[in-house]
Amino acid sequence: MFTINENYLQLNESYLFSAIAKKINEFTLLHPDADIIRLGIGDVTLPLVPSVIDALHKATDEMAKKETFRGYGPEQGYEFLREKIAEIDFQQRGVSVSADEIFVSDGSKSDTGNILDILGEQNSVALADPVYPVYQDTNMMRLGVDDRLILLSCTAENDFLPQLPDEKIDVIYLCYPDNPTGTVMTKPQLKQWVDYALKHRSLILFDAAYEAFVTEDDIPRSIFEIEGADRCAIEFRSFSKNAGFTGLRCSYTVVPKALKTIASDGREVSLHKLWNRRQSTKFNGVPYIVQRAAEAVYSPEGQQQTREMVEYYMQNARIIREGLLSKGWAVFGGINSPYLWFKCPGTNDSWQFFDRLLNECHIVGTPGIGFGANGEGYFRLTAFNSLDKTREALERIKNW
Amino acid sequence: MFTINENYLQLNESYLFSAIAKKINEFTLLHPDADIIRLGIGDVTLPLVPSVIDALHKATDEMAKKETFRGYGPEQGYEFLREKIAEIDFQQRGVSVSADEIFVSDGSKSDTGNILDILGEQNSVALADPVYPVYQDTNMMRLGVDDRLILLSCTAENDFLPQLPDEKIDVIYLCYPDNPTGTVMTKPQLKQWVDYALKHRSLILFDAAYEAFVTEDDIPRSIFEIEGADRCAIEFRSFSKNAGFTGLRCSYTVVPKALKTIASDGREVSLHKLWNRRQSTKFNGVPYIVQRAAEAVYSPEGQQQTREMVEYYMQNARIIREGLLSKGWAVFGGINSPYLWFKCPGTNDSWQFFDRLLNECHIVGTPGIGFGANGEGYFRLTAFNSLDKTREALERIKNW
Repeated sequence: MFTINENYLQLNESYLFSAIAKKINEFTLLHPDADIIRLGIGDVTLPLVPSVIDALHKATDEMAKKETFRGYGPEQGYEFLREKIAEIDFQQRGVSVSADEIFVSDGSKSDTGNILDILGEQNSVALADPVYPVYQDTNMMRLGVDDRLILLSCTAENDFLPQLPDEKIDVIYLCYPDNPTGTVMTKPQLKQWVDYALKHRSLILFDAAYEAFVTEDDIPRSIFEIEGADRCAIEFRSFSKNAGFTGLRCSYTVVPKALKTIASDGREVSLHKLWNRRQSTKFNGVPYIVQRAAEAVYSPEGQQQTREMVEYYMQNARIIREGLLSKGWAVFGGINSPYLWFKCPGTNDSWQFFDRLLNECHIVGTPGIGFGANGEGYFRLTAFNSLDKTREALERIKNW
Repeated sequence: MFTINENYLQLNESYLFSAIAKKINEFTLLHPDADIIRLGIGDVTLPLVPSVIDALHKATDEMAKKETFRGYGPEQGYEFLREKIAEIDFQQRGVSVSADEIFVSDGSKSDTGNILDILGEQNSVALADPVYPVYQDTNMMRLGVDDRLILLSCTAENDFLPQLPDEKIDVIYLCYPDNPTGTVMTKPQLKQWVDYALKHRSLILFDAAYEAFVTEDDIPRSIFEIEGADRCAIEFRSFSKNAGFTGLRCSYTVVPKALKTIASDGREVSLHKLWNRRQSTKFNGVPYIVQRAAEAVYSPEGQQQTREMVEYYMQNARIIREGLLSKGWAVFGGINSPYLWFKCPGTNDSWQFFDRLLNECHIVGTPGIGFGANGEGYFRLTAFNSLDKTREALERIKNW
């Protein structure tokens, strides 16, 4: 009889956002006329910008003609896109990343999960608590409930930034600007982690999906701004939030060629080579038309248009932040991030607050407990709804 | 120090098609004027059909407007597509598959690799030899060189169809119409495997990527045409070959709800539930515009246009088949498949024949040895080039 991966049986049955969707459905059945405002999940609401739309139409027309049709592309992504990424996201900012260190893919969710394919099962793995649930779930799919999985406590006392662990940890997930708390690390703070990783030969999995929302100068947008990070880190980036690609699907992962470790027989192994082997065996690349769309984000017009889109969301973030602060609530994030994280007023039960906010203000957010035990009593709102709806939501909260 | 998955170190350094690309590059450098005809890899050459192009433009326009913009979609695929698939690919052919048993994804290569995530590592796994290299590589990434991996010998003596194993095997890969040999199983032949799997509670991973090329009535296009297969099989389908989506990326996997096994604690486990958990945690769905393109394949015009495309390639297959037979060579496939498989004349060394064909006829094919030990002395040609090029190639071979 064939067997299954029984680690799956140890996972929670439902993913956080499915549980929320269920609650909203139940509420809507009872109150069909309620004008619910969703400040819950991190999905964008503005349409794709004109440069991207033009690129999609143009590439589609290429696919309609024999002479310009493209079949299988390189699994790592087309050169035209990898070169733009290297140049504009890194080299122009003084960061040394080359085109062939970039692997274009269909999503950071896929890549942050799939990266475990190339890592050993013996590794100890550290995650922040609270944390983006996918990191924890994908590790549990491999290890089950296991003491190799270590949670780094993030609380109001440490401004929701983890402290360096006392013990040696092999693999460390860092996500800054952070999902869910919206907090950021300064360069000196991030440097401490790079130094730790270099000292202990740890690997940092750095999720920079929200880098476009950084507004302050001393906040790194890439871990590769820190010297030595190319020997200890992999970085995940996405077009989902900076260019509204959540429905178009494109992201990329930087695996530096300098990143190496030692195999049990003593030979040095390049992670770049392993990831290349993984991707060329288990992935067939991102649609050509989507890669042309991503390329268009790097045109002068595309840069301008997507910057305006990010600024629109950041205006929402400011409105939410100021609204919550005016209530006297303890607020984190929202300055370099589209996420706002705050202490639930009057309760230590995030789901209870979720229900109250939904029932009394008709606003949907995300209960902090969904991101880990330290999230209990906290709540997340996001800046991705429209300006009007965001204003309206904060009016409701102010008058609550 | 962090460790890697050392099974990767046991893999061949280069994937088959990379090795071929390298040889072609070397040849082209020496003979820049040679008119090379590629009958090697299985990539399509005809452009996307008009229905698909129209759907892409229309969906792109939807993404340009706030009112019709779509962000994150369901990880399993949009209902509009899953329902069309269930209806037209299955129900209209008398096969009972429901929309919620279908998981839309970005490629069968991804899915046939990723499916291992939900299976136990204890399973014995049977693969044909010769075989599509991805099955073998993805298993080796999990197990390394391991005697749980069993090769089912396919040779001219058994018409390149494996015999039922004597021992009990937990997981069995079957790909029909077969890549690489182009052979097919009749319904009674496939029924033997379903009966075997039901008896031993094995799981069949059935790759039907080439079902659109079936021309003969008694050849199943889906394993679910066989009674009981919904209790022992997962089927992989792709839009790559039937609709030319190799550069657009869309496929789907059918995981029947009736498919269950028993966990070590005795409880019954649904594979459908596990795969749903895997996909919703590690995947964010296929681009909306690509799903609209796939939906257009099922419109009356789309069905007609893609059928013509398949017939075009099958005309090529007939030309290759007749050309090779006229040389007196032993030929397999090409009747219900775009792949032709033949005994290399005058040599038992596939790479030697590859070199001769490239050097003397300027034709690229795929050496059988690349698909497994039993492929040595055999060679694969594909029907995906243009009619003109295919005719020209066969003229060269006839006059060789």
